[in-house]
Amino acid sequence: MKDLTVGRYLIESLRKIGLNDVFGIPGDYAINFFKLMEDEGINLIGTCSEQGAAFAADAYSRMNGIGALCVTYCVGGLNTVNAVAGAYAEKAPLIIISGAPGVSERNSGYLLHHMVRNLDSQFNIFKELTVASTQLTDPYTAASEIDRVIKACLAHKRPVYIELPRDMVHQKCALPLKEADIPVYKNLCATKEAIEEAVQIIKDSAKPVIIAGVEIRRYKLEDKFLELLESTGLPYATTPLGKCVIEESHPQFIGTYMGKIGLEKVRRYIEEADSVIILGALMTDTNLGSAQLDITRTIYATADCLNIKNHCYKDVDLGDFIEGLTRELKDIKRHLIDTIEVHEEDDFEVISDNSITVSRFFKRFGKFIRPDDAIVCDIGDSIFGSINLKLPENTIYLGPVFYTSMGYAVPAAIGIQIANRNLRTIAVVGDGAFQMTGHEISCCVKYGLNPIIFILNNKGYTTQRHLREGSYNDIHNWSYHLITELVGGGLGLEVNTEEDLEIALEKAQKNTDSFTIINVHTNKHDKSDTLHRLTTIFSSKLGCSQ
Amino acid sequence: MKDLTVGRYLIESLRKIGLNDVFGIPGDYAINFFKLMEDEGINLIGTCSEQGAAFAADAYSRMNGIGALCVTYCVGGLNTVNAVAGAYAEKAPLIIISGAPGVSERNSGYLLHHMVRNLDSQFNIFKELTVASTQLTDPYTAASEIDRVIKACLAHKRPVYIELPRDMVHQKCALPLKEADIPVYKNLCATKEAIEEAVQIIKDSAKPVIIAGVEIRRYKLEDKFLELLESTGLPYATTPLGKCVIEESHPQFIGTYMGKIGLEKVRRYIEEADSVIILGALMTDTNLGSAQLDITRTIYATADCLNIKNHCYKDVDLGDFIEGLTRELKDIKRHLIDTIEVHEEDDFEVISDNSITVSRFFKRFGKFIRPDDAIVCDIGDSIFGSINLKLPENTIYLGPVFYTSMGYAVPAAIGIQIANRNLRTIAVVGDGAFQMTGHEISCCVKYGLNPIIFILNNKGYTTQRHLREGSYNDIHNWSYHLITELVGGGLGLEVNTEEDLEIALEKAQKNTDSFTIINVHTNKHDKSDTLHRLTTIFSSKLGCSQ
Ligand SMILES: Cc1ncc(C[n+]2csc(CCOP(=O)(O)OP(=O)(O)O)c2C)c(N)n1
Ligand SMILES: Cc1ncc(C[n+]2csc(CCOP(=O)(O)OP(=O)(O)O)c2C)c(N)n1
Repeated sequence: MKDLTVGRYLIESLRKIGLNDVFGIPGDYAINFFKLMEDEGINLIGTCSEQGAAFAADAYSRMNGIGALCVTYCVGGLNTVNAVAGAYAEKAPLIIISGAPGVSERNSGYLLHHMVRNLDSQFNIFKELTVASTQLTDPYTAASEIDRVIKACLAHKRPVYIELPRDMVHQKCALPLKEADIPVYKNLCATKEAIEEAVQIIKDSAKPVIIAGVEIRRYKLEDKFLELLESTGLPYATTPLGKCVIEESHPQFIGTYMGKIGLEKVRRYIEEADSVIILGALMTDTNLGSAQLDITRTIYATADCLNIKNHCYKDVDLGDFIEGLTRELKDIKRHLIDTIEVHEEDDFEVISDNSITVSRFFKRFGKFIRPDDAIVCDIGDSIFGSINLKLPENTIYLGPVFYTSMGYAVPAAIGIQIANRNLRTIAVVGDGAFQMTGHEISCCVKYGLNPIIFILNNKGYTTQRHLREGSYNDIHNWSYHLITELVGGGLGLEVNTEEDLEIALEKAQKNTDSFTIINVHTNKHDKSDTLHRLTTIFSSKLGCSQ
Repeated sequence: MKDLTVGRYLIESLRKIGLNDVFGIPGDYAINFFKLMEDEGINLIGTCSEQGAAFAADAYSRMNGIGALCVTYCVGGLNTVNAVAGAYAEKAPLIIISGAPGVSERNSGYLLHHMVRNLDSQFNIFKELTVASTQLTDPYTAASEIDRVIKACLAHKRPVYIELPRDMVHQKCALPLKEADIPVYKNLCATKEAIEEAVQIIKDSAKPVIIAGVEIRRYKLEDKFLELLESTGLPYATTPLGKCVIEESHPQFIGTYMGKIGLEKVRRYIEEADSVIILGALMTDTNLGSAQLDITRTIYATADCLNIKNHCYKDVDLGDFIEGLTRELKDIKRHLIDTIEVHEEDDFEVISDNSITVSRFFKRFGKFIRPDDAIVCDIGDSIFGSINLKLPENTIYLGPVFYTSMGYAVPAAIGIQIANRNLRTIAVVGDGAFQMTGHEISCCVKYGLNPIIFILNNKGYTTQRHLREGSYNDIHNWSYHLITELVGGGLGLEVNTEEDLEIALEKAQKNTDSFTIINVHTNKHDKSDTLHRLTTIFSSKLGCSQ
């Protein structure tokens, strides 16, 4: 029998939670563990850069419920900081494993390569970005530390950090003496009281409405949420980050709510309701920041807290709360009244010679999407233009709608297909964002993936142009579709007119053997209605009139 | 007269220390300041990603003595963490200016987009990476805070962080009440005693030798160091990071010292000397880690401390110490004895059909370099293969030899040419490193720069292969020379044989209008002698025999 070593225990722990794919790039501090992972049959996905690996692992996590990343010390780990910050902000559970100098070499008296201020610099930095972290320097506690940290990841749905000194990988380790426990405080009395109060408010309302957020998905509460909908008949919207948390073809779905940034019809519906039940949404400036919700008519429940009107309940489990509502509200089931038809079923007729506008692009794009597709959008008009599309059954929609880092979509498309190769995966990405991480498209050739990638090429940082124009918003134009030459694979297409777009969509549809990249030229000032509303509101926040 | 505002004061402060170029990418939290910089005539350099901007600014700083970077909150700032860590580790003074949410919007009760754990997350992270940092939240103290932080940058030659909330940019501010003072402790008695002791040791030695490090350049001590050499006739080596700190054509120069990793002749010369004076070198595992220096014969002076044998002196200024040695050692000036001729002047004869080996490549490359060229090498065999080249007068040599993050060279080449457009700039970069940041080559087209970029294309992470082979060291092959198609500019060349290389060098020489990129194919296992020695030593450090 093989010895139980720190490295093997870590690998077994990943397997136990369903992880057999690990993203990352080696380095001398991490290579012992890379070798071990390879020997033990872990599927290693090497990207172009560590940031790419982290974005891919984040998307994988959003698909799969958990994701993992392995990098070398500092040069690797610190290269993932932005991506890990995004996973923290948007609650994507991610296990970051970093190599590190051996315990036995820490007192050599020399500065070790990759070191910053001291040997703990990277550890200290990751404390700001994770809900639990550990340095596996002791073979007696290593296994129980691994348990503790992974449990915290699963419980809090946020990144955790495991630092593995290179001389610990093959050290024998002790089994944990007991199961790690993440204390879960459930206050049943508070839960009962909160449910009663919420139910009363809802029963007293003529027009209650629900807003569903991303935690419904993160905590796998989709079924409970669906039951609540079915048994009450209440209409619901989602936040942007919660888009597609359940199918948008659901008859009670009224649209994506973003306060004044979103569709006016949705905004009015929500803000005219006489009670609003917000379930599992982060309260961010991009979703509820411009909302005008009367707090005395609001029930706001998340995994961390439950607020009704101006008071708060502690230790009420989100799932229990939703179940309680379902149970107590069964009798109010009623005919669905006055949900609005947000998505006008307007026909799309190609105007062949027309150049492409953002809104027409997304109208057409909406019709291109099929049930079961996975859509991932980068920040900028790629997200804003797509956020109000009504997507068919089982569509997955990902995008960093709150943290809003550029460069997410291309590596995320890779993460999605590593999680599930059968999904048709479509990325929409701005030219600016593509210049940050678009080269990760190379991984599609390496691993035989076939996403379809649309570049919204508006020749610069259009989102920023509408905030404050200047030459810093101009970027150098690339022939994005020619990246196929560089990476030696894929189908590259260029689109100037609506006719071009039709041809490109048809080709993309047929090309299932490789990735397709479509360089869609748009006007540099053109923008979607959503981006227009967003930049109007955000301009006023710049804090000066100049 | 224009109002004195926080933004204007910051810009004036940059100007005062000779900075008119700022690298970076805007975002809504930073765009007020971007606009102001543009209006005030600052030269803004926009790269593809913030990491590229940071690497470029780092190289600019190594050329110019100081560099600056402006980014937006979190998504921008956290994207630079790895590059800034490198600047910290290798002492490149860098001013990082980050936008941030306005002071007036901090208590909105909403999570603000780009936020991680809380509003101070980014500030906390940068504390680990800088010698001084500030959040400019108070118009009364903003100017004096700016002074303090910039002074610290100049004094310690390491990064500093300035967080500028967006609503502070146009706020009127107060002038500092007094000059910021960074206390400089100079102990003159200790200095005198240390010089006396060192001089005695050197006088008692038959064969003293000097090792010069990077701080000679950072603290602009080149002239003082040269005087010491001229007045004493002592032979000297440099550390890898100190390469080209003064001209390698100097007759007393014996080579680059890296302990057992470096050339055997240099190692023996140094380790057989009966006293070693180390001036301004970081004590790292990649330079002195494998050295066998007898500490009882070693004088080791840096900007932070001075060690002679086993005792240490505090508060001795490095420049004062060098001057003292020069003064007191004038009389020992002697004929230069037995300096070795490290660099065999071997002729290079092209063997046309030969495929390219790393050592033959660098032999030929050495002859391609002209006086005044700037060379920048990425980590991997690009650095190791080039580290023992004897470079002509006035050559500048940059490379992250201690922190050793991949992806430095291409953005650094841009930083070098922004600092001085007249320098012929040559980058050597591995295929792995190029896949991380090589797309920044796009900036060459954007800004009309013309570096020559060699890709050492050995189809993977060769440095790692020699530590522990596995499929994780394979990367997807690109047609690197075809990146010209993607970015719409530059001259791309492919090299398989020595004859191809000759042709490519000639074309590169002539092509001064655009960048040249040369895809040099080598064998995936081939390595330089230095890399061979390094991986042999490093393998033994992996801490296990498996
Ligand atoms: C990594 C990163 N840097 C900077 C920003 C600030 N920012 C937000 S939108 C934007 C412009 C995005 O340009 P592009 O990707 O072309 O999309 P567009 O706005 O043109 O639709 C910028 C620079 C960001 N969100 N992320
Ligand atoms: C950002 C970063 N990630 C990982 C490493 C660890 N590492 C050191 S050398 C190396 C391989 C470099 O490959 P390449 O650039 O092709 O150069 P080669 O070793 O083949 O000369 C790696 C992965 C690093 N130094 N920096």
